[in-house]
Amino acid sequence: MALGLSACATNSDQTRPPRNPTAARFGGLNKPMSLRSTGSFFVGGRKATFTTLEAGLYRGGPVSVDQMYVEYLIPEAVTGPSIVMIHGATLTGKTYETTPDGRMGWYEYFARQGFPSYVVDQVGRGRSGFDQAGFNNVRGKIAPPESQRNFRRIADDLAWVRFRFGPAAGVSFPDSQFPAEAAAPLAMQSVPDIQPDPASDRANYTALADLAGRLQDSILIGHSQSGRFPFEVALLHPGGIKGVVAIEPGGCNSDGYSAGQISALAKVPILVVFGDHLDAPQSVGPNWLPFFKDCQAFVARVNAAGGKATLLHTPDMGIRGNSHMIMQDRNNLEIADLLISWVYRSVLKR
Amino acid sequence: MALGLSACATNSDQTRPPRNPTAARFGGLNKPMSLRSTGSFFVGGRKATFTTLEAGLYRGGPVSVDQMYVEYLIPEAVTGPSIVMIHGATLTGKTYETTPDGRMGWYEYFARQGFPSYVVDQVGRGRSGFDQAGFNNVRGKIAPPESQRNFRRIADDLAWVRFRFGPAAGVSFPDSQFPAEAAAPLAMQSVPDIQPDPASDRANYTALADLAGRLQDSILIGHSQSGRFPFEVALLHPGGIKGVVAIEPGGCNSDGYSAGQISALAKVPILVVFGDHLDAPQSVGPNWLPFFKDCQAFVARVNAAGGKATLLHTPDMGIRGNSHMIMQDRNNLEIADLLISWVYRSVLKR
Repeated sequence: MALGLSACATNSDQTRPPRNPTAARFGGLNKPMSLRSTGSFFVGGRKATFTTLEAGLYRGGPVSVDQMYVEYLIPEAVTGPSIVMIHGATLTGKTYETTPDGRMGWYEYFARQGFPSYVVDQVGRGRSGFDQAGFNNVRGKIAPPESQRNFRRIADDLAWVRFRFGPAAGVSFPDSQFPAEAAAPLAMQSVPDIQPDPASDRANYTALADLAGRLQDSILIGHSQSGRFPFEVALLHPGGIKGVVAIEPGGCNSDGYSAGQISALAKVPILVVFGDHLDAPQSVGPNWLPFFKDCQAFVARVNAAGGKATLLHTPDMGIRGNSHMIMQDRNNLEIADLLISWVYRSVLKR
Repeated sequence: MALGLSACATNSDQTRPPRNPTAARFGGLNKPMSLRSTGSFFVGGRKATFTTLEAGLYRGGPVSVDQMYVEYLIPEAVTGPSIVMIHGATLTGKTYETTPDGRMGWYEYFARQGFPSYVVDQVGRGRSGFDQAGFNNVRGKIAPPESQRNFRRIADDLAWVRFRFGPAAGVSFPDSQFPAEAAAPLAMQSVPDIQPDPASDRANYTALADLAGRLQDSILIGHSQSGRFPFEVALLHPGGIKGVVAIEPGGCNSDGYSAGQISALAKVPILVVFGDHLDAPQSVGPNWLPFFKDCQAFVARVNAAGGKATLLHTPDMGIRGNSHMIMQDRNNLEIADLLISWVYRSVLKR
């Protein structure tokens, strides 16, 4: 049943769909798209008050914090469950919209393929905003500078290597699927990212559980820093979650989950996706191979508990050169088709 | 030629279109919407490097700052110029999407009426992000706390009164058009807003001029804190800007513009819109009447210079109860129709 299953992850037949980059481009991507609706709303959140009284606007009353912005495209003809996409570190939901070089992203593509398509901004970033109290308290000298949380950002040259566009900044792997000319517009997608901690992670899980509770059937997709978010949300709120997908997570916490948690995760179809060049030496920090191996161990552990977890390592399917930003790579819609194929095989036909 | 012209603003015939809240709901709003495309991109921006080296992600290279996120809906059949919408203080582009009580916003409505529809996040907020250097420098103790910029936010109870939903928090004007039940979801649209200064304003004008340069014909709409942005962009980059609209600006700078600037603004059709209850006494600060009067003076000055400026004060048209969040009021599409009517009368037929 598994699709593009890594040799190390069992629970598989070895059937592969024929590889044809355009075979699955159903519906004509240059044709107009007919939508039942498009829009946005918020989930999660709580009320807070601030200690410092800022000039002009605030005045001491309650404000909303920890809410999560959600945008959606609902196709005229719905033929599958809702797809919820969560972005990674220093990024926003823009990750899944138009690619940096102007091609169609997964947000639109899933809608064109009949899936209600949802993209969120993580709590703390983008249109979800954050709780500014800790910053203004330092400015107002009622809290020490070191109490202020760090805003992370990824530099362009570091992103090039960490996201595996090539072995050194400005140099592409010969088979790279990432459009090198799009590195500059990708850099514009980066926003300040408050260093995560357990509380901020929990705020995201709670908001996503709220969202999953509102959608009847949903499949959650996390990426990189949020790669494991779908696992955590499924543990918190299993109802209505029909499948979870981790795209290039920073590991799968294979040793960290209890037997009970693994048992719970074994009830949900799981897909983990990794691209190419995982073992390229990196001057900028650890390479991706340990994360991949941890996810192999996780998939094996879930399947040993009776689960249905699949590790999709794209080079095993003969698809070479995919980067960490696989949803923006040149073959991004081919990869989306693999996810859709997994939905039909492992989620809808279970 | 003017539409709903205030008695104080001349250059008018007194013809009013018949008032019928549903007359102009062309196209059937519950029908599917056919889009040529939807997506997003960035404009403006510059490169910066940070002094502090944050743990984990940054590493000292260049990053993008001051870029502006733009999202768009392009209808299958385009029948008018592009409409660009800019949000106000403590808010993001979400302002123009689905209303807080779940109705259609201007972003979708303009697209359904045949206009390519663009919504931005101001530089410094939402998916546009900001330059975090000043914050991390304070955290790293290489800059003093008071050098850190203030994050503004508006408290729920203050917003209620300042946005003229009613005379006191939780109390609606009897004729209020703002859906009182939507005050809580509106509060979730608020994000931390770095106190503006001339540099941050300039970054927004530059990015918007970049956008106007890319669009062939565009009409820029500002709101509240960004109400005058379209004037500034038209002065910076007149090419391609076919009209500018200020929705409830914090005044119109009637004394501040030079004769040369007024002359330049007289070349562009201008619409200024204000809702109801401008003179309601406010315990929370100055009421809106001085801003309205300043805009009356501005409109008169532009028209005296041969311009075509219109002040649309909705009560003068017999439309009562509109709030500061007029694009979210119950009659928001009726107001949008007035804007569209102005486009046809004053922009396309000039």
